Amino acid sequence: MNILIAMDSLKGSLSSLEANEAVKTGLSQADPKFKIQSVPVADGGEGTVEALVYATNGRIVETIVTGPLGDRIAAKYGILGEQETAVIEVAEACGLPLLLKEQLNPHITTTYGVGELILDALDKGCHHFIIGLGGSSTNDAGIGMLQALGYQFLNREGEEVGFGGGQLEEIAKINSRLVSDQVKKAVFRVACDVNNPLYGANGAAYIYGPQKGATPEMIQELDSGLRHFANVVFEQMGLDLQNIAGAGAAGGLGAAFAGFLNSRLQSGVQLILDINKLERKLTNVDLVITGEGKLDGQTSMGKAPAGIATLAKERGIPVIALAGDITDGQRSLYDSGITAYFTIVGGPVTLEKALEREVARENLTRTAEQIGRVWGQASLNRLKDYGTKHE
Amino acid sequence: MNILIAMDSLKGSLSSLEANEAVKTGLSQADPKFKIQSVPVADGGEGTVEALVYATNGRIVETIVTGPLGDRIAAKYGILGEQETAVIEVAEACGLPLLLKEQLNPHITTTYGVGELILDALDKGCHHFIIGLGGSSTNDAGIGMLQALGYQFLNREGEEVGFGGGQLEEIAKINSRLVSDQVKKAVFRVACDVNNPLYGANGAAYIYGPQKGATPEMIQELDSGLRHFANVVFEQMGLDLQNIAGAGAAGGLGAAFAGFLNSRLQSGVQLILDINKLERKLTNVDLVITGEGKLDGQTSMGKAPAGIATLAKERGIPVIALAGDITDGQRSLYDSGITAYFTIVGGPVTLEKALEREVARENLTRTAEQIGRVWGQASLNRLKDYGTKHE
Repeated sequence: MNILIAMDSLKGSLSSLEANEAVKTGLSQADPKFKIQSVPVADGGEGTVEALVYATNGRIVETIVTGPLGDRIAAKYGILGEQETAVIEVAEACGLPLLLKEQLNPHITTTYGVGELILDALDKGCHHFIIGLGGSSTNDAGIGMLQALGYQFLNREGEEVGFGGGQLEEIAKINSRLVSDQVKKAVFRVACDVNNPLYGANGAAYIYGPQKGATPEMIQELDSGLRHFANVVFEQMGLDLQNIAGAGAAGGLGAAFAGFLNSRLQSGVQLILDINKLERKLTNVDLVITGEGKLDGQTSMGKAPAGIATLAKERGIPVIALAGDITDGQRSLYDSGITAYFTIVGGPVTLEKALEREVARENLTRTAEQIGRVWGQASLNRLKDYGTKHE
Repeated sequence: MNILIAMDSLKGSLSSLEANEAVKTGLSQADPKFKIQSVPVADGGEGTVEALVYATNGRIVETIVTGPLGDRIAAKYGILGEQETAVIEVAEACGLPLLLKEQLNPHITTTYGVGELILDALDKGCHHFIIGLGGSSTNDAGIGMLQALGYQFLNREGEEVGFGGGQLEEIAKINSRLVSDQVKKAVFRVACDVNNPLYGANGAAYIYGPQKGATPEMIQELDSGLRHFANVVFEQMGLDLQNIAGAGAAGGLGAAFAGFLNSRLQSGVQLILDINKLERKLTNVDLVITGEGKLDGQTSMGKAPAGIATLAKERGIPVIALAGDITDGQRSLYDSGITAYFTIVGGPVTLEKALEREVARENLTRTAEQIGRVWGQASLNRLKDYGTKHE
């Protein structure tokens, strides 16, 4: 019996790695003879670096970069086992968690540190990049990152503009002569699960501005800045940033990656599963166990468990999903290849208690043990049945 | 695939019948080809009559009897399909739910109506009785019931004593000349899951008196009355009521049944499973699904799911237990034959919400469906495996 465990993180409780470990413990308690392999998964958001580094025997690098407010901060990224690919979550250099609520201000926050992380990885020999876009505190269309990489954004006086979304309006000229060949040749794959255009009613400022601390007036200014920037880029470089699906992700970082760095914006799950070579690992697997914190309609719309289930389904492998909450569990889960889904809570409990690390771990272990016991017994039973009838 | 469903009631939400039906619905959704039989179960407590009547195609009889306070009340009992066995829950005639809190008074509450239910069933041709002892509001050592059946309990003046535990002290002589042959020949099997003696620190008054409204002073009087009664019975009839395990059940009704009516006091679960011929029904069953409201340490100490699991285990049949709450689920459950146990709640939820009838029903159906899907898939998987390796 070969079992592949590929749990997404249980947000607020366990990382993907920890969740996999808890499931493995439970299954092994059910039957020590199960052959188990674990694949940490992620969707391009939080935990992506940890998951990929672990899966490839890579390493974590810590360096000092420019934070969202221009101060110096420590930031981590990953280098995969083959030493040529860096995994960067942009939130490490410009994320919301780096700021206090009262510090949030997309008018001035910059993505400069993201560019510095890329430079650091280039220095260490990486020329492939996997980028997770979630959770930025910025709305600068990625000009901060591009500045770090050598792009110059000049105002009417020919001076370089400063940091932040508030500067976009000032840009009159773009100069890319100082961008190194190393940067130009690097290959970027970007995990991006939103389709927002750069500006407008569905653009970066209107949709994501409020959670980044923008007031209604600031949102108008930021949107106007993004629109101006897109016009300048179109006129001078012939690039149509606005109409790239996902251009508005991470305050316009999507546009910067897709337009300036020629990146593919890809579904996070699909990207991570590719990198993890999940398809190859599914060979000879009898059962897949996946899951996440809350299994709901969203799951069947592209999150990790559904992505994994789809791959398993193509190979006829049953998939059991475990989740902290399946209250809104939909039959549509079945369509994505999930054979059955179970909650891990033990009974009536508050959300707060259920999210406690040790509680989540125990719940996951216990439920996996039960699944293992049922699976083992059902297999045995049918085998007995088969033997009786066909011998 | 033959599946036997034997769910105990989910107290506060669903009866055994309703729980079975919800599980059946879920399993059928998983695979309409499952062959399913349902056995309603009970432990001698609430729901026992309904469960046995349904299981045997019997009927419910309603009659008017003397209530715990001497007033006339409507009370139900069951007659099994073979028309010779009556099922009586004593709570119908003398239960706590019949009284308001301020009416509770074991000094005066009587079991007389229980005797009347027995007489009614004798009149209808029953000569076997199954008695559930739970939930009485009385502490009269069953003299009320025995009075209805023809026993006379006389005071020093030779007059019959009245109703209630307060009268026990007055009894000087017992006369059984007026007890009919019909009563004497009747066979009683009593579901009793407590081992309390009649009186003393572990007796009926001290242990169960408080929940029946006895004050500390009243408890002393009641205990003293029980002791006096036991002495009179021993002197005049040679019966040692005190040392019958379970004599103290239902305010001493256990003693009356065991001592005067020659009844077997038996584990409720075992008794009900016997009546239901569960052992015979397990023939050719591939999977048993059982469960109850809260699956905990107590379960493995003799409640219905554990009793069912034990019978299944003897036959090598896997058992899956479903419960509203398995938080305290113990590995000792495995020892009683439970293969695996699952909660039915869908995620963090309040107890109040989880107990809602429709919520419990949906949760049970969904969980059963998942179990059915896993079981079906696991069987298939192994079969495929077997085919590959042995063809």
